[in-house]
Amino acid sequence: MIALFARVGGGIYTKAADVGADLVGKVEYDIPEDDPRNPATIADNVGDNVGDIAGMGSDLTESYVGSIVSCLTTAFLLFQDTLETDYRYILFTILIAGVGVIASVLSVMFIRMKKWENPHKALNIATYVATGVVVVATILLSLLYVNNWKLIIAVVAGLLAGIAIGFVAEIYTSSDYKEVKRIAEESQTGHATNIIAGFGSGMKSTALTILVLVTVIAIAYFACGEYGIALAAVGMLSTAGITVSVDGYGPISDNAGGIAQMAGLPSEVRGITDKLDSVGNTTAAIGKGFCIGSATLTSLAFIVSFVNAAEKALQIDDLLITLDNPAVLVGILIGAMLPYFFSALTIAAVGRAANKMVEEVRAQFSNDPGILAGTSVPNYNRCIDISTKASLREMILPGVVAVFSPIVGGLVLGVEGLGGILIGGLVSAIMLAVFMANAGGAWDNAKKYIEEGHFGGKGSETHHAAVTGDTVGDPLKDTAGPSMDILIKLMSVISLVLVPVLVKIPSLWELLVNLLG
Amino acid sequence: MIALFARVGGGIYTKAADVGADLVGKVEYDIPEDDPRNPATIADNVGDNVGDIAGMGSDLTESYVGSIVSCLTTAFLLFQDTLETDYRYILFTILIAGVGVIASVLSVMFIRMKKWENPHKALNIATYVATGVVVVATILLSLLYVNNWKLIIAVVAGLLAGIAIGFVAEIYTSSDYKEVKRIAEESQTGHATNIIAGFGSGMKSTALTILVLVTVIAIAYFACGEYGIALAAVGMLSTAGITVSVDGYGPISDNAGGIAQMAGLPSEVRGITDKLDSVGNTTAAIGKGFCIGSATLTSLAFIVSFVNAAEKALQIDDLLITLDNPAVLVGILIGAMLPYFFSALTIAAVGRAANKMVEEVRAQFSNDPGILAGTSVPNYNRCIDISTKASLREMILPGVVAVFSPIVGGLVLGVEGLGGILIGGLVSAIMLAVFMANAGGAWDNAKKYIEEGHFGGKGSETHHAAVTGDTVGDPLKDTAGPSMDILIKLMSVISLVLVPVLVKIPSLWELLVNLLG
Repeated sequence: MIALFARVGGGIYTKAADVGADLVGKVEYDIPEDDPRNPATIADNVGDNVGDIAGMGSDLTESYVGSIVSCLTTAFLLFQDTLETDYRYILFTILIAGVGVIASVLSVMFIRMKKWENPHKALNIATYVATGVVVVATILLSLLYVNNWKLIIAVVAGLLAGIAIGFVAEIYTSSDYKEVKRIAEESQTGHATNIIAGFGSGMKSTALTILVLVTVIAIAYFACGEYGIALAAVGMLSTAGITVSVDGYGPISDNAGGIAQMAGLPSEVRGITDKLDSVGNTTAAIGKGFCIGSATLTSLAFIVSFVNAAEKALQIDDLLITLDNPAVLVGILIGAMLPYFFSALTIAAVGRAANKMVEEVRAQFSNDPGILAGTSVPNYNRCIDISTKASLREMILPGVVAVFSPIVGGLVLGVEGLGGILIGGLVSAIMLAVFMANAGGAWDNAKKYIEEGHFGGKGSETHHAAVTGDTVGDPLKDTAGPSMDILIKLMSVISLVLVPVLVKIPSLWELLVNLLG
Repeated sequence: MIALFARVGGGIYTKAADVGADLVGKVEYDIPEDDPRNPATIADNVGDNVGDIAGMGSDLTESYVGSIVSCLTTAFLLFQDTLETDYRYILFTILIAGVGVIASVLSVMFIRMKKWENPHKALNIATYVATGVVVVATILLSLLYVNNWKLIIAVVAGLLAGIAIGFVAEIYTSSDYKEVKRIAEESQTGHATNIIAGFGSGMKSTALTILVLVTVIAIAYFACGEYGIALAAVGMLSTAGITVSVDGYGPISDNAGGIAQMAGLPSEVRGITDKLDSVGNTTAAIGKGFCIGSATLTSLAFIVSFVNAAEKALQIDDLLITLDNPAVLVGILIGAMLPYFFSALTIAAVGRAANKMVEEVRAQFSNDPGILAGTSVPNYNRCIDISTKASLREMILPGVVAVFSPIVGGLVLGVEGLGGILIGGLVSAIMLAVFMANAGGAWDNAKKYIEEGHFGGKGSETHHAAVTGDTVGDPLKDTAGPSMDILIKLMSVISLVLVPVLVKIPSLWELLVNLLG
């Protein structure tokens, strides 16, 4: 729930300020980004922290805790009969998670030891060090404590998948690769071709991401069964600490640039921060890929726990969440629709809040001409207020959808139908999250690539077209996309908790079947 | 397969010509749409026929035949034991489909009897007449021939769902309602807000569409079980004939406008055809909603047949396409990814073909300055050739994906995993299809709404922003979106045919489970 507020609310907060500030500042008054005369800049910088750092951190913490809980649940349900093995597997899960935290701290200490030329390289090495420490610890714990070498496969598969998903995100969002260059090239023929190119590229990026995910699911399952899937999630998330650091890099360098601009520091400073910011866009996309991947594995593990828990509660061997059960089909359709509806709500919320911001900035400019002249200080607080209030108010409806849809779904369609809602929601949410994160990151970096002087450079028609893509991508990659992770985890956890209640009362669907059958 | 070529190939054909013609004509040389000096106009008009009329017709024909086949398969599999009832249900299915054809012909004859002021009203009345005839025939046949009144509920639910889905599409794509007006309003703040508004509106439109679909599935199932779902599809499609006529209205009036422009007829003629064309955009969106709805019901009926056929072949009661089977989970994830990958391919294909068209038009303009002056005739045939060749060549990869993914998926993941691929693909494809069709239609009509003189009218900055949305929407609503219908139907039919083979040979997944378990 905290993650819901931090991630969704933060996303609305940051993008309302960002889009609002850009619309009035860059478009109407032609003053540069982060200019101190623009009253919305402080809200924009605060938003970067709220949305990208607090939001991301709470998202990953939720996944982290979620994966451990679902792993423990699975271990508990699966090994219930053999009480002795039980405790070793449960402890193993907790130990791996703990090692991950230590590994993250170690890796940060390691990169502090030296001065690095290339910031991206330093971050990569930190990730590799943390991964290496977890791998060594996993091998030792699996062989010496649990005495089951197959556990190594599941944990390592999860760890590697985390890196691989980040790499896929890098291919589709870094200007070092051809996708971003192609989007920049397509911007030459206008706004529409820029949008279409980014749209297509984001859709295509789902293919490799999903292949990585299904590979890790298959490997983990073949190694350790259902427990393996949950264990792979724990493995992936064991290095979450370092991922939060890597991801935090983006908003921090973005804000540094903003502060440099506002403080009127010389343009070389801004040049350095701009370069750092471009690396930050890619690390942000890598971090988002990691969030999506870990949210997927965690939710899958929860869904498997959900099915197992329902089977135990109903004392049956196979819960019939089958495709010839229409309650399941109806559930899958509704579940798949929810992420679209949820995204539409959050995107509209950003639009409304940005409009309020635009009105406020316009009013300040017209009431006090000294602001634009640079002689009076704009009222930054009022803009921060607007973002804060808007994000809290606009949170209500999406929050209600996330919390009540599994409850209502379970009561109407029963446990089987709720299973359908979960799996439909999961796949739909992953696809949208990957699509939005990568399309948004690619548009942003295509714009930066043009600003570096390609295809006409800053201020050209091509650049204007690329700015359109960047602005469209903002609410997708920073509000709607990341909200998907929260939505599916929240829905699966609530469903798991609901199982004991749902198996006791007949669903509306069952009542109708009995009445009409 | 024919539908695949007509729908996907036609979609690439028409949009390559349309986008290509617009990019050079409107943007670079500032000559109006459908100007005879533009060599790509004839290809654009040919494309409207190929994509929108032939493509739509073959799409609905495929659904029509598909729904009948799946209905017969279900009836056959379900009533195998009671041979006597069997034949009556089978004949009932065929009779309803036949009555639908007669009803469509009757309704066209009926509206021919009178001269209509409002073309939209005439088309609506034709739909109601056809629906009425089918309802009466269904009541008579159910009561007097099969002697089962519950069949009436399933058929009528299907018929009403067809109309309701069209109505939802109208709400989201007609400028009479607030969504399109809001997109037009958002265009005032630029290209990006226009795109974001259309994006959000398209996503929101999935909610009502899915609610209509799950309602009809539930009602049909409660009335007649699994046979009811297939019967609802037959019911919905019984009036497909009249839907093809209504949908054909759009491209015909669009082409009439094009011909009027090219022939240099007075501007009043163009005024009339423009008004007809705007109605045509809404009827086209209604038709697309109908196509999506019927493709969904048909594919669902096929999936149910698929599960039943596999159960009969394996002689088991319940095929374990359950959520705690990782092969199913992997299948669902891959299935959900395929529509995104397929869309990315078709969108990229339009982009490439449109670029070829742009180069050809530019070359013709620069080689013969007489074309722009209006003294020499441009080479229309070369543009038609480019569209034809591009659409055939670009068809290959999407075709391979559609045909081979169920085959490879079935061999690797087995029957259970293939079931997962089908349902994952189905839900993902429906969502994308609804989202793309409604966002595209809304952008198109938001542009038309502005052209009518709202928010600054033709030529204003607002209008330019709206043209961006329209151009982005073109490949989504006319190429990628409609391809979804074909993709899911083709995949389900191929899977159904594969069942006898797949149950005989072990899948790679099973081999690995046995090897490693």
